[in-house]
Amino acid sequence: MNTNRGKVYIVGAGPGEIEYLTVKAQKLLTQAQVLIYDALVDSQLLQLVPNNCEKIHVGKRGGQPSTPQTEINQLLIEKCQAGNKIVRLKSGDPFIFGRSSAEIQALIAANCPFEIVPGISSALAAPLLAGIPLTDVVLSRCFAVVTAHQPEELDWEALARIDTLSILMGGRNLEYIVHQLQRYGRSQKTPIAAIRACGTPNQEVWLGTLADIVEKTAGVSLSPVVIVVGEVVGLADYLRSPAG
Amino acid sequence: MNTNRGKVYIVGAGPGEIEYLTVKAQKLLTQAQVLIYDALVDSQLLQLVPNNCEKIHVGKRGGQPSTPQTEINQLLIEKCQAGNKIVRLKSGDPFIFGRSSAEIQALIAANCPFEIVPGISSALAAPLLAGIPLTDVVLSRCFAVVTAHQPEELDWEALARIDTLSILMGGRNLEYIVHQLQRYGRSQKTPIAAIRACGTPNQEVWLGTLADIVEKTAGVSLSPVVIVVGEVVGLADYLRSPAG
Repeated sequence: MNTNRGKVYIVGAGPGEIEYLTVKAQKLLTQAQVLIYDALVDSQLLQLVPNNCEKIHVGKRGGQPSTPQTEINQLLIEKCQAGNKIVRLKSGDPFIFGRSSAEIQALIAANCPFEIVPGISSALAAPLLAGIPLTDVVLSRCFAVVTAHQPEELDWEALARIDTLSILMGGRNLEYIVHQLQRYGRSQKTPIAAIRACGTPNQEVWLGTLADIVEKTAGVSLSPVVIVVGEVVGLADYLRSPAG
Repeated sequence: MNTNRGKVYIVGAGPGEIEYLTVKAQKLLTQAQVLIYDALVDSQLLQLVPNNCEKIHVGKRGGQPSTPQTEINQLLIEKCQAGNKIVRLKSGDPFIFGRSSAEIQALIAANCPFEIVPGISSALAAPLLAGIPLTDVVLSRCFAVVTAHQPEELDWEALARIDTLSILMGGRNLEYIVHQLQRYGRSQKTPIAAIRACGTPNQEVWLGTLADIVEKTAGVSLSPVVIVVGEVVGLADYLRSPAG
């Protein structure tokens, strides 16, 4: 038996830049022997690992399909059983639409120790970095986070009654989302924001209402995007800092 | 005019320990000239500031009432106008039930520059650190975050239809919450977790169902607590790491 057992750290990369990593994630990256990462992870984070760290990309790239999940699982197990300290880096937070469970269950089945390290989810960071508070004492007593990858599977009647929504992967389905929310009673004047590439130098924000956001973003590639719906979106204009 | 203008950084402290701060928050703390902090902020974070940093506590302590909001606003403005680099440290994330808007609007009125720095909200970190993923490909396509400080103001009929709930400040109202969720159709077998002091050495977790969680936590002081409701709570048992 190898007494120097490996370990897999399933780490949230946060929204993008190094400064939004946790202190723990940064430390783990600087000590990683193997780094296994997804497509959406910011390239500057990959520079934090030691020179001799093995970097393995398992996301989609340049039209190539992503690595099948069973292969990723096998890779994690093999590298762990070889005694490595592995960072499995995921965009945002590993437990917010990170599809971590399949990997975790494979690790457990192979008796490989692991630890989950939280990251700042784009669902929360994107509105903040666009100046939008998801909660407000008057305007927003609760918010919901959804992925609109398959929007027809969601309960839009219930979601329309939640003060504020933060919607991931909704770029392609923006028109459907806007339609459902109005269908279940949200006013067409409800403010909405589309925040692309939050927390990176390329961040861009479109503000509008349910009535005009589709038109305002026509022809724009909304990916990666976070869509925020609710009266709090209107606060962004009132919460801007004076010049520093 | 002072050309060396001050600036206020409204910074999320995350759930507790230094390792869950962002890299940016840690850096700002090590450079702070004035630190203004709330009651729930972990004491070890206060050690990060320079020796000559002025530390001002504005939260509740030992039965004393917290500093009135207008006084906190005035303090921020005065220290900023004196040219200081101020860290206004808030538990969790400043835009998730952080009551930051009043301070921001006061800073804007006084022409004081500021920046909001995200932190990991306990609403997301607590379930993760207890081994509960808030989302799951099958069990949880969305989750909602609420504060149950005044639970009668929430739309429990809509909330009961959301796959997973993460409820802050619900300790005193646990019985009310459990009642409302069952009233609006959630099975009494629905798994529920109460996670106290997440991300600290004192973290403790109670697991149960809507039928028995009130009894299981009888006599326990649930503060600070995050309550998680939904089928994903049941995954915690399946996602435990083998010994490392």
